[in-house]
Amino acid sequence: MKIKRNGRIGALIKILCDNPNKIFTLSYFTNKFNAAKSSISEDIVVAKRLMEDLELGRIETIPGAAGGVKYIPLVSRRENKEILEDICEKLSKPDRIIPGAFIYMADIIYDPTIVRKLGEIFATQFKDQEVDYVITVETKGIPIAIMTANALNVPLVILRRDSKVTEGSTVSINYISGSTGKIQTMSISKRAIKNGANVIIIDDFMKAGGTAKGMMDMMNEFDANVVGVGVMIATKEPKEKIVKDYVPLLILDKVDEKSKTIHVYPNEYLI
Amino acid sequence: MKIKRNGRIGALIKILCDNPNKIFTLSYFTNKFNAAKSSISEDIVVAKRLMEDLELGRIETIPGAAGGVKYIPLVSRRENKEILEDICEKLSKPDRIIPGAFIYMADIIYDPTIVRKLGEIFATQFKDQEVDYVITVETKGIPIAIMTANALNVPLVILRRDSKVTEGSTVSINYISGSTGKIQTMSISKRAIKNGANVIIIDDFMKAGGTAKGMMDMMNEFDANVVGVGVMIATKEPKEKIVKDYVPLLILDKVDEKSKTIHVYPNEYLI
Repeated sequence: MKIKRNGRIGALIKILCDNPNKIFTLSYFTNKFNAAKSSISEDIVVAKRLMEDLELGRIETIPGAAGGVKYIPLVSRRENKEILEDICEKLSKPDRIIPGAFIYMADIIYDPTIVRKLGEIFATQFKDQEVDYVITVETKGIPIAIMTANALNVPLVILRRDSKVTEGSTVSINYISGSTGKIQTMSISKRAIKNGANVIIIDDFMKAGGTAKGMMDMMNEFDANVVGVGVMIATKEPKEKIVKDYVPLLILDKVDEKSKTIHVYPNEYLI
Repeated sequence: MKIKRNGRIGALIKILCDNPNKIFTLSYFTNKFNAAKSSISEDIVVAKRLMEDLELGRIETIPGAAGGVKYIPLVSRRENKEILEDICEKLSKPDRIIPGAFIYMADIIYDPTIVRKLGEIFATQFKDQEVDYVITVETKGIPIAIMTANALNVPLVILRRDSKVTEGSTVSINYISGSTGKIQTMSISKRAIKNGANVIIIDDFMKAGGTAKGMMDMMNEFDANVVGVGVMIATKEPKEKIVKDYVPLLILDKVDEKSKTIHVYPNEYLI
């Protein structure tokens, strides 16, 4: 089908953005749009500049035999600020406080519009790492983690709380939840992760860091390198967490049941 | 910023497709692109035709005061066939067979590229329903369910296997797993679902249908209307499932441990 330049650029952007971090060859587009290589190259230049001007992410051309063009979702500091402050506002509503000084946040961490953006923020933070897998542990971090995996175009691996018959041979480890002090188990199929892979760990919440540390220990069993840890919310206290190096999007300072106040703010290094 | 038509159409498509089923007003684009309403209207016409010609989904204009323009992801039968046959091929590899005649499929149901497409297939199937929530139960259906919720632009609700302190007051129900005959529990925060809502249920696997029935019973507690049930894989046997009306993407006919064969095929009504 012959498509005019007007349309070609639109279709090119649509196809690239639907498949973040996936490399398309120029021939893919010359065939699809029935256009010359030179025309497609010009389209890419226009698309590239457009995405930059409007801060919609980056289109990158990769030279060489295995080359082509790909879309990298990038969230700017300005956008981080907007997204994260909006979540803070939502999270600070007093009626979210649950007995025990917990915050109800299922509606936020399962909202596709929100987790899609959070996934892109994490992908932006870890874009310079060669990531092979995104790792999370069931349950609440899964939506954010799959969106991060989507933005990075890598598989997601979900660690289970128990060993499941449908996983085949599994590796299990015990770990101590830093906040409750209880011993917990996590397990994963032996075939889930290739040995020596680079992984990032994504979760919704970190208090003492015991769960993240458990995931890191599990990665040791696969000789995997943890090249990044990202959590949506980290508590301000304890300041010293078991995991040293992690990227929180939000900091939870205080939940006060008496005065019905929640104090949560964006990680200042991101905005 | 003033943007030329070439670029405007690309940017318009990018913004619409990043936010499926979200209505944008024309003024949003006239402001963003610093262009006249008539120009934006013409851009929309071009974008609309382009998406149809290339089978990339549909751009729809909504007239009236609350009107605007939105993108509806639509997966054609031709694409269904391609996607589903590709998954069947992957699933049929003999080394996936796990003792007990289970199939290892974590790598498929947690692959963002795959689940994103499956989410769009479900969204296409249920596009004529007024859906308020997508419902699933932890754990393996979550990635497909959040992608379905994303494509439909509605919140996801995850039913938990146990009652959690971080959920506040919960509703719990017991149900009988149709395949194992065991009594199980699922629970959900009372505030997770508005009374009288329309919901669709999405899960990865259905054998007898006990879990889906459990989710339907739970929806009764909220006076919610289940307007659709979608599962990625349904077993061929038992033919009579507890749930009558459901849309499977794939049918699993047989897993034979002895001959190391797996027979799985796409739902013929979708391709």
